[in-house]
Amino acid sequence: MDPKAERLFQGANLIFIATVNSDGSPQLTPVWGNYEDGHILINTAEGRIKHKNILNDNRVAVSVVDYNNPLIMTTIQGKAIQIIPDYDYEHINKLTLLYMGIKEYPYKKKNEKRITVKIKPERVFVMPEIHNPSG
Amino acid sequence: MDPKAERLFQGANLIFIATVNSDGSPQLTPVWGNYEDGHILINTAEGRIKHKNILNDNRVAVSVVDYNNPLIMTTIQGKAIQIIPDYDYEHINKLTLLYMGIKEYPYKKKNEKRITVKIKPERVFVMPEIHNPSG
Repeated sequence: MDPKAERLFQGANLIFIATVNSDGSPQLTPVWGNYEDGHILINTAEGRIKHKNILNDNRVAVSVVDYNNPLIMTTIQGKAIQIIPDYDYEHINKLTLLYMGIKEYPYKKKNEKRITVKIKPERVFVMPEIHNPSG
Repeated sequence: MDPKAERLFQGANLIFIATVNSDGSPQLTPVWGNYEDGHILINTAEGRIKHKNILNDNRVAVSVVDYNNPLIMTTIQGKAIQIIPDYDYEHINKLTLLYMGIKEYPYKKKNEKRITVKIKPERVFVMPEIHNPSG
């Protein structure tokens, strides 16, 4: 993947993921995630709409903007190729460290099972550099 | 619309908008926008993929997260009900003031025509308040 796009996943930048509902309309939510070995790994909970949607149609779009500079951004089209159980919170704890600077996921809920969605990027668009005349 | 959702549109928070491509896959980009008289107004350029998609299928999803507190967020499903020419830059200049604090849109491009997409919110989801144990 483009190194500029990769870098966006190394920061504590929220990832927006769009899926398609069963009626063909778009569905969209912010999630935590990271980039490892050529894949985007986002974390969600079992049974959420995006999980159901992905099982039905695995095409997704992902967008990430640099928290400190909105002109640095990427949008990616790809496919969810694997759902990995994160029942022991290994992945979500890792993301908690990345996003909150603490070691343990603080929003644990009874009966909620976390999962990791592994996304293979297919088309990566990186915003071209723009000279910002105001800055 | 829920006042919490409305407030998110009053700040300089990027708006993520998802549309559906002609092949049924999701398409996603960050945009500038605001909220006026019950509608979300986002600004884009004529001929962009999201413009074409909306002409083909006007169902969209929109997500906004508070820049200062990612626990404050909304996701909205709705319909693009009108495309309004913004050829005189009135709307985009207004958004430039909101997002950049300057009066004139600095990224004007020759042959680019700006448009405003008017979105009617149909389902508004606001993240329930979470006690943040780390803060």
